[in-house]
Amino acid sequence: MAEQRVSLITLGSQNLAASKRFYCEGFGWKPAFENGEIIFYQLNGLLLATFAEKALAEDMQRVASGRPGSFALAHNVRSKDEVETVMLELLSAGGGLLRVADEPPIGGLRGYVADPDGHAWEIAFNPGFVIDSAGNIIFGT
Amino acid sequence: MAEQRVSLITLGSQNLAASKRFYCEGFGWKPAFENGEIIFYQLNGLLLATFAEKALAEDMQRVASGRPGSFALAHNVRSKDEVETVMLELLSAGGGLLRVADEPPIGGLRGYVADPDGHAWEIAFNPGFVIDSAGNIIFGT
Repeated sequence: MAEQRVSLITLGSQNLAASKRFYCEGFGWKPAFENGEIIFYQLNGLLLATFAEKALAEDMQRVASGRPGSFALAHNVRSKDEVETVMLELLSAGGGLLRVADEPPIGGLRGYVADPDGHAWEIAFNPGFVIDSAGNIIFGT
Repeated sequence: MAEQRVSLITLGSQNLAASKRFYCEGFGWKPAFENGEIIFYQLNGLLLATFAEKALAEDMQRVASGRPGSFALAHNVRSKDEVETVMLELLSAGGGLLRVADEPPIGGLRGYVADPDGHAWEIAFNPGFVIDSAGNIIFGT
């Protein structure tokens, strides 16, 4: 039985510079490492990598058959006010609006922004998910 | 500036039962919550959700234009031997082989398996990334 863990999220990118602008200026994140084909960001116990799309396809030996894919990442925030602030910063750094922030059935507030390669980010304030001081979410706490 | 954090990874699924078999029997993970359209798994400080594809598309107000998408998740393990063990368990629980485990340029061992919806998982032993007792990876430690 494998531990319940994810170590990296790797997103294919057709334009690493545009992607970097989104993550560094939009989210305000700092790379932990970068070279000409990959950029790593340290997140809460795992890494996000943006990787040249062709290099990723070669590494996993499969070409993506379409974009965007059927998945989303979520960045939860600690207060309702932060949702639109973060979304506006992402949009001004090259993000594309998918869903204007509104209230989901479970309460709170969430919207969706696509990164320059079309990868979806949900920005959410979810009162049911407590974010601890390390930035982690533990279901049911 | 937003904290460097991801709170959820949501994967669209066309067959939640097949997906559940992969994650529960292949990885051996236990759901933290499930209903007829979504299953949550608690990972290291974030949640993995498998979500009915149509419901995800409705939530983010965008239909996936193709699958598989250009991204991969990685599950790193603590020893070289575990790579093939985990891969075999995933393959016997409905996963599809993308890349037989071999040594990447940076050393170690890695292979790729697709989940039943085609989402790619890299299973890797990377001697450059230390996994701490909580299952986290901190770049450069």
